[in-house]
Amino acid sequence: MKEITRIDQSDRRSRAVVYGGIAYLAGQVADDKTAAIGIQTRQVLAKIDDMLERAGTDKSRLLTAQIWLRTMDDFSGMNAMWDAWVTPGSTPTRCCGKVELADPEFRVEIIVAAAL
Amino acid sequence: MKEITRIDQSDRRSRAVVYGGIAYLAGQVADDKTAAIGIQTRQVLAKIDDMLERAGTDKSRLLTAQIWLRTMDDFSGMNAMWDAWVTPGSTPTRCCGKVELADPEFRVEIIVAAAL
Amino acid sequence: MKEITRIDQSDRRSRAVVYGGIAYLAGQVADDKTAAIGIQTRQVLAKIDDMLERAGTDKSRLLTAQIWLRTMDDFSGMNAMWDAWVTPGSTPTRCCGKVELADPEFRVEIIVAAAL
Repeated sequence: MKEITRIDQSDRRSRAVVYGGIAYLAGQVADDKTAAIGIQTRQVLAKIDDMLERAGTDKSRLLTAQIWLRTMDDFSGMNAMWDAWVTPGSTPTRCCGKVELADPEFRVEIIVAAAL
Repeated sequence: MKEITRIDQSDRRSRAVVYGGIAYLAGQVADDKTAAIGIQTRQVLAKIDDMLERAGTDKSRLLTAQIWLRTMDDFSGMNAMWDAWVTPGSTPTRCCGKVELADPEFRVEIIVAAAL
Repeated sequence: MKEITRIDQSDRRSRAVVYGGIAYLAGQVADDKTAAIGIQTRQVLAKIDDMLERAGTDKSRLLTAQIWLRTMDDFSGMNAMWDAWVTPGSTPTRCCGKVELADPEFRVEIIVAAAL
């Protein structure tokens, strides 16, 4: 039985789980939920960078990304930050849909998996 | 080519697929779709327990969970059951969003993956 | 460090990423977004077939599928094409929810993963 590593765990969830050479991250949301879409996206991506580092990998090893937006009006605002953040030549698969989040003030949540 | 194991398969979908040391479960919904959120969540989690057992694993080996709620008004009702169900110290990553389901009476659907 | 293969990559995303014996596909949408649900679903499934072939696998090796529909009124129209497409005895896990897409004209997006 291979070992499972769990990072930043509460009684409800782990923020990252590493198993079989892949780091699975929980959905990340911004710290400042009142901020505009650009700032929220930047905060989400910074949290993903931090979590990937703690898991022993980085964004150049991303496999998949699922992006939830509260409203599609934020699509281009999110994309501007996303496109500047990903590693050229090492982009993950992606899907993006309109999904309202637990707290209606959050505008974006991103769920990724990355290879170690 | 490694073998794929499929559990409880119809012509449309398998309820679980095991490959490469991971059991991927189909989205599970309650048996009684007219029930309140607490009961629906308990039924979903019981079905997940059953499916994980048939795949040769259990909830202490969960890697990821994606939770769809028909309405975020059910967030705390779902969480009460979730928090009582997960194994302390072995929680999966999690994301939770508002997604309406195939049948509007279903209040919650949960999709998990677990290590063997 | 195992190698990651990325297929049909733009600066934003890869349409498929292969790692650790699994091909992860980006969410696929129809070419003709003005088409009815049956035609859109058929186009999506044809693109998935093509992507799986380029990744070195095929639909008989599908592990998981997540289906997003703009409206649940399209559930049976999508299922008619889906049921005719999957390989009997080799169906993936599945979940299907109402998620609006980046462009409101798209009626369906499907995200799959397949074993090599």
